[in-house]
Amino acid sequence: MNAYASLEKTFARLNNLNHLSSILGWDAAAMMSNNGSEARGAAMAELDVIRHDALTDERLKDLLSTAKTEVLSPIQRANLNEMQRLWQTENLLPAALVEKQAIVHSRCEHAWRSQRPANDWKGFATNLREVVALSRERADRFSQALGVSKYDALMDQFEPGMKSAEIERIFTDLKAWLPIFISQAQVKQQNEKVLIPVGPFAIDKQRALGLDVMRSLQFDFDGGRLDVSTHPFCGGVPEDVRITTRYREDEFTGSLMGIVHETGHARYEQNRAKDWLAQPVSEARSMGIHESQSLSFEMQIGCNPAFLNFIAPLIVKHLGDQPAFNAVNLGLLYTRVKPGFIRVDADELCYPAHVMLRFEIERALIDGHIEVDDIPALWDEKMLAYLGVDTRGNFTNGCMQDIHWTDGAFGYFPSYTLGAMYAAQYFATIRKSQPQLDQQIAQGEFDTIFDWLKTNIWQMGSQLSTDELVTRATGEALNPSHFKTHLAARYL
Amino acid sequence: MNAYASLEKTFARLNNLNHLSSILGWDAAAMMSNNGSEARGAAMAELDVIRHDALTDERLKDLLSTAKTEVLSPIQRANLNEMQRLWQTENLLPAALVEKQAIVHSRCEHAWRSQRPANDWKGFATNLREVVALSRERADRFSQALGVSKYDALMDQFEPGMKSAEIERIFTDLKAWLPIFISQAQVKQQNEKVLIPVGPFAIDKQRALGLDVMRSLQFDFDGGRLDVSTHPFCGGVPEDVRITTRYREDEFTGSLMGIVHETGHARYEQNRAKDWLAQPVSEARSMGIHESQSLSFEMQIGCNPAFLNFIAPLIVKHLGDQPAFNAVNLGLLYTRVKPGFIRVDADELCYPAHVMLRFEIERALIDGHIEVDDIPALWDEKMLAYLGVDTRGNFTNGCMQDIHWTDGAFGYFPSYTLGAMYAAQYFATIRKSQPQLDQQIAQGEFDTIFDWLKTNIWQMGSQLSTDELVTRATGEALNPSHFKTHLAARYL
Repeated sequence: MNAYASLEKTFARLNNLNHLSSILGWDAAAMMSNNGSEARGAAMAELDVIRHDALTDERLKDLLSTAKTEVLSPIQRANLNEMQRLWQTENLLPAALVEKQAIVHSRCEHAWRSQRPANDWKGFATNLREVVALSRERADRFSQALGVSKYDALMDQFEPGMKSAEIERIFTDLKAWLPIFISQAQVKQQNEKVLIPVGPFAIDKQRALGLDVMRSLQFDFDGGRLDVSTHPFCGGVPEDVRITTRYREDEFTGSLMGIVHETGHARYEQNRAKDWLAQPVSEARSMGIHESQSLSFEMQIGCNPAFLNFIAPLIVKHLGDQPAFNAVNLGLLYTRVKPGFIRVDADELCYPAHVMLRFEIERALIDGHIEVDDIPALWDEKMLAYLGVDTRGNFTNGCMQDIHWTDGAFGYFPSYTLGAMYAAQYFATIRKSQPQLDQQIAQGEFDTIFDWLKTNIWQMGSQLSTDELVTRATGEALNPSHFKTHLAARYL
Repeated sequence: MNAYASLEKTFARLNNLNHLSSILGWDAAAMMSNNGSEARGAAMAELDVIRHDALTDERLKDLLSTAKTEVLSPIQRANLNEMQRLWQTENLLPAALVEKQAIVHSRCEHAWRSQRPANDWKGFATNLREVVALSRERADRFSQALGVSKYDALMDQFEPGMKSAEIERIFTDLKAWLPIFISQAQVKQQNEKVLIPVGPFAIDKQRALGLDVMRSLQFDFDGGRLDVSTHPFCGGVPEDVRITTRYREDEFTGSLMGIVHETGHARYEQNRAKDWLAQPVSEARSMGIHESQSLSFEMQIGCNPAFLNFIAPLIVKHLGDQPAFNAVNLGLLYTRVKPGFIRVDADELCYPAHVMLRFEIERALIDGHIEVDDIPALWDEKMLAYLGVDTRGNFTNGCMQDIHWTDGAFGYFPSYTLGAMYAAQYFATIRKSQPQLDQQIAQGEFDTIFDWLKTNIWQMGSQLSTDELVTRATGEALNPSHFKTHLAARYL
């Protein structure tokens, strides 16, 4: 067996461990009993150690360098690059740091769950300082190996190859027009008469509606399922994708569009290259590209009036008829612009403002230009500037609202807005070759879209860099003007 | 760290691996998508290898023998005995045999799923011969190490210390009176007027009823849950016990009593000794003792007219009122004697006949006195003798009905009837100290029973041998006369 073949074997083994970890992670969020968490934590830590040992096996270093000299097909070469990347990340961190991080993150996240509702910034800051110290240490190690800034080194784990200078360039442009768009959209919408759907909406009927919509979006139920969790997500394994939602009896539109969003993530996973499923090259190119799938489904398809026209009869079928369920009104509901405190509740137009703010703060924090104690004032200032919202003293719905920092996931936030931009760029491309796209969507015909996504994104996995992938698919690298055009068309 | 402490650490690690395996096993039965099984198989095999490697680590041999010379408390000593037992089993089998078994069992079980409905004995026999050959090889290795017969060596994995000579003695006695009891009960019941509940019974209402009954039996929902699977079972981990049932819209009594049965297994697991959960000494003493808990719940509590009196209002609450739901009629329904083809559908009186037949056949098979081709004729002969049922040519509902043999689980069947006998013996003891037991049960007061089971069985784990455990709890070793007395009182 040559070195590359040995590596494929090792990474297939790692894929098996990831399978275990992923299903157990889903279980913890969707199924686990209250009293099960401590034992689960110990069992998952055991699995992490096994995975770490496998990826830091000293034989891998030689195998990786020998494999580079072997004759490989392009996809094997791309696979080898991904192996190298995963190996490097794992080997840059000493086991003691990994273990310490696990403890500190777990403590910070656990305490946050009660500190957030208690508006206890002081208590939270104490733990967050520890998290930041360890994240800086991790960033430092990655930074030296990758030859990029500390923040860029962390972001690279989610967006390989992306630089914060590029994000800054994009966000500087965004800042110039987004607040104006938001104001203009609000003015335009102020005289709209929007009917609010009148509940209660039985959970089992909402679920049946969600399943019908998933079916129409070609979710493969032989290879996945829909469940409930506090924080909706897409998990599981490509052969058995598990998406979740949460239901409220008084409001169904949020849960329904959440299902559409997760279905986008799910179809990416369900349509990864079959022959390469056990190898890293089949995995999603980046978090931004993953979000570009969920946002293609949610924003480009889901909130499109043509789609709402298509699903309005499904809503009536499951929830009964009422005036608010006409397609035009649904369109108004799903495009309502209203600046608010909470990122996850933000509309399409306000969402990027939440992301910009977090990017600016976390970059300064990791690069050492600010400290944890500086966060609240910066948060207040930027919320006021970008969204006109006053968050002073409101930590609960201000700088303590997200789980990301508790777990040291600095560098993730930009992926959300990159995803929205990629999605707009894909659909600009798709519409060029199919001007009748909205008519198709209104009929529930999505083959043009799904064929395009399958060929250009889903099946490509990590074969190309993000830039190459997007350029090959749309003829140009990331171009935020498509996002601006999309928003202008929808909101102005 | 002394040798014993090192061993505790190793077995806590194994407990973590068992946690992963157990939750994933539950997931495979209750949650997994159709397309998920192949990837799951590979992931579980990976976990099996890791577990096998941990248990065959060559350092364990010395640690085990050194630990025997160390000063240990009685429970540590018992824990060491269990470690030794688990270690021996794993180390007696070469990895190649373990792997071959996994392949052959999986093939046989998979094919059986379609061969059984097709009544394809010939096809099944081909695979079963392979399973038997490997089971004989395994039995041979265990047999030499334990110094017992081949069949006894396999049974020892489920019933440590039990011998087939003892089972034979018990079954010989049983054979002398059980067929007569069955006939007498049928004669007695032939003029009973039994009202059959009239469906349909909505699944969600059956589920709510089941949950209510579980609550009354003190199932801890902070440490467990109820779901659906094709074959009901109790799985998960002691901190998070997962029981399953299956529902039919036209019939609810089977599912309901199935839930009572699994709740018995669950409460054993939920009440294992807290301080020892990560160690083998806290685990169930044997499969027979485990079944004695489910059958305590199903047969001693559940089918008791006092209990049916207690739950009749719950049934009415969830399923609406109808004449069949009066407690007396429920009693008739749950004690109806009717010999039939299928073990899992058998009533309390006929069940042991199904077990005796399987014990006799599988013992002869493993010890080499018969071959796979001899099974159908023996099956027909014994079904006729014990239950008066003609199974000739009906393999589907005859010798192909159970999954056990497809997986090489020879030696398990006796545990079912041992469990029924232990349960009768416990309740004879409990009734001696509490003559008002039925009045308590009729009020939904189970503390007398649960305190007794918790002290004598649940918390004891594997601290004692089965004989010691039962003797300590009831004043005597297994005494099948209590089972006979119980059946006579209920059916004659």
